[in-house]
Amino acid sequence: APATVTTRLCQAGILILAVWWVFGPLGGVGTTPRDLGEGANDTGPIFNWHPLLMLLAFPVLMGEALLAYRSPAPTLDSRPARKVYHISLQICALALALLGLTAAVRSHTLKLPQPIPNFYSAHSFLGGLVLALFAFQVALGLWAYAWPKLSHPARVTLGPVHTFLGRAILGLGLAAAAVGLQEKATFLQLGAGAGPASAALRLPALLQLLLAAVALGVLWHHVE
Amino acid sequence: APATVTTRLCQAGILILAVWWVFGPLGGVGTTPRDLGEGANDTGPIFNWHPLLMLLAFPVLMGEALLAYRSPAPTLDSRPARKVYHISLQICALALALLGLTAAVRSHTLKLPQPIPNFYSAHSFLGGLVLALFAFQVALGLWAYAWPKLSHPARVTLGPVHTFLGRAILGLGLAAAAVGLQEKATFLQLGAGAGPASAALRLPALLQLLLAAVALGVLWHHVE
Ligand code: HEM
Ligand code: HEM
Ligand code: HEM
Ligand code: HEM
Ligand SMILES: O=C1O[C@H]([C@@H](O)CO)C(O)=C1O
Repeated sequence: APATVTTRLCQAGILILAVWWVFGPLGGVGTTPRDLGEGANDTGPIFNWHPLLMLLAFPVLMGEALLAYRSPAPTLDSRPARKVYHISLQICALALALLGLTAAVRSHTLKLPQPIPNFYSAHSFLGGLVLALFAFQVALGLWAYAWPKLSHPARVTLGPVHTFLGRAILGLGLAAAAVGLQEKATFLQLGAGAGPASAALRLPALLQLLLAAVALGVLWHHVE
Repeated sequence: APATVTTRLCQAGILILAVWWVFGPLGGVGTTPRDLGEGANDTGPIFNWHPLLMLLAFPVLMGEALLAYRSPAPTLDSRPARKVYHISLQICALALALLGLTAAVRSHTLKLPQPIPNFYSAHSFLGGLVLALFAFQVALGLWAYAWPKLSHPARVTLGPVHTFLGRAILGLGLAAAAVGLQEKATFLQLGAGAGPASAALRLPALLQLLLAAVALGVLWHHVE
């Protein structure tokens, strides 16, 4: 239980720091570009949904989904209840992650005077790989374990593969998030002149350390 | 064995792309700053040892060390031989990683007209955490398994902890390397005007994907 409590504290810390960073130094969220005059605009508020939704999806919801079968949870004491909880969280996480992707793409596409290209960075390739694996795992999981539902022996065979791929997707997702935080932090440092000790750069640094802690905390529950 | 072969190909790919990136777009390595006149210098060639050594240490040497006990290796068929191989690789990896750290610090400290601050970025905090865990794990490992060597029951108890922490250090190290690649790529994009489709930005993107593949490949060998 100490591991469970620590992991949850780190997940809560990520949410708090993400909100602080996005609504503080990054200037908050919005759904339309801010007109800057002379044919230019600021799509930053649209983009800012991206870190918010991604950090909600991966360390928080997916992290929680991977704890579902293992963490001591008095209100979820039957296996079917834990399974419903696991699946619901994963579907929510995937939906938010896809929304988070559209936020980044929309902020690029609507940018004036010129759109920013999509999928040009290392982070976007790694992130794209993670999202593809995540969508695949949800589709395979539903097909195998929910509907049409494979035979019991087939499910037993799939178990270790589903578990390995699932842990891998969590790990790669947290790594992609850390890489994205670094990309944005370096944009702020070079583009907006944020100083090394500013909240703009310190908060992503803390977030990266908490992402590492959540990875260790969740996967520790999977040590037999 | 197909997993072993694929993992090794990815490790080789990382070495090749790292050398290509460092000696191509990054301009190669050196041990002294390049004088630019007017009291300024270029410490880039000193810095460039950093990605080279870190990518040799983590995905290649530490990855190989974690395969030592599990991968089919006809020439290393006794457990004591595998143990010597595991320990030697980890000690080499730690030595190269510490050299890689001094390269980054030296390139910051010798920079003119002004030194660059040390340990200011998210990447440097995450990287610092990884190096501390790595040094701790080597010290603990030697003390417990080599000299003075704990009792058999104590070693059996430590086993799962050593294994969990070791896998975690590999994962976090590969994540830190991906974050560092993104930081440098974004420096090149904003500072040196590297285009989205330049080798300067494409090679770190490919390297991140190969780092993900090595993580999956090595940890797959640990699925029972
Ligand atoms: C696991 C979580 C994440 C995934 C899967 C992910 C995925 C992606 C993808 C696929 C893109 C490309 C969108 C496009 O090209 O239009 C993107 C863009 C971006 N992401 Fe993320 N992201 C994640 C978390 C984050 C976080 C936490 C940040 C922090 C701010 C971030 C920063 C960025 C930035 C700055 C861009 C725009 C520049 C670029 O295309 O690289 N990402 N992300
Ligand atoms: C939404 C569709 C999904 C369904 C129907 C589903 C179903 C299941 C079921 C039935 C189990 C228990 C299997 C067993 O013990 O043999 C399980 C475990 C697991 N699932 Fe999923 N899953 C889904 C999505 C995901 C996703 C997207 C991930 C990760 C990205 C994931 C990661 C895991 C992990 C790591 C375990 C092992 C948990 C543990 O042993 O504590 N699952 N899932
Ligand atoms: C696991 C591997 C790695 C670890 C543990 C690591 C660790 C570190 C540390 C501790 C620093 C701070 C040094 C200082 O402040 O003087 C640093 C700096 C740096 N590293 Fe890495 N690094 C790794 C891999 C990489 C890679 C592959 C790159 C790609 C180029 C990279 C890029 C950078 C950059 C640009 C800096 C200087 C800016 C800064 O301090 O953030 N790192 N690294
Ligand atoms: C240099 C000092 C080290 C020594 C003396 C040492 C010793 C050992 C021994 C004796 C085992 C077998 C344990 C068992 O099966 O119960 C082992 C396994 C392992 N070690 Fe180390 N180790 C060292 C450093 C490290 C480091 C630095 C890491 C990772 C960063 C690491 C990661 C692992 C892993 C993941 C295993 C499990 C391998 C498997 O089950 O295939 N070790 N180590
Ligand atoms: O649908 C399911 O499949 C697995 C198991 O029966 C096979 O591993 C499980 O726990 C379910 O709830």
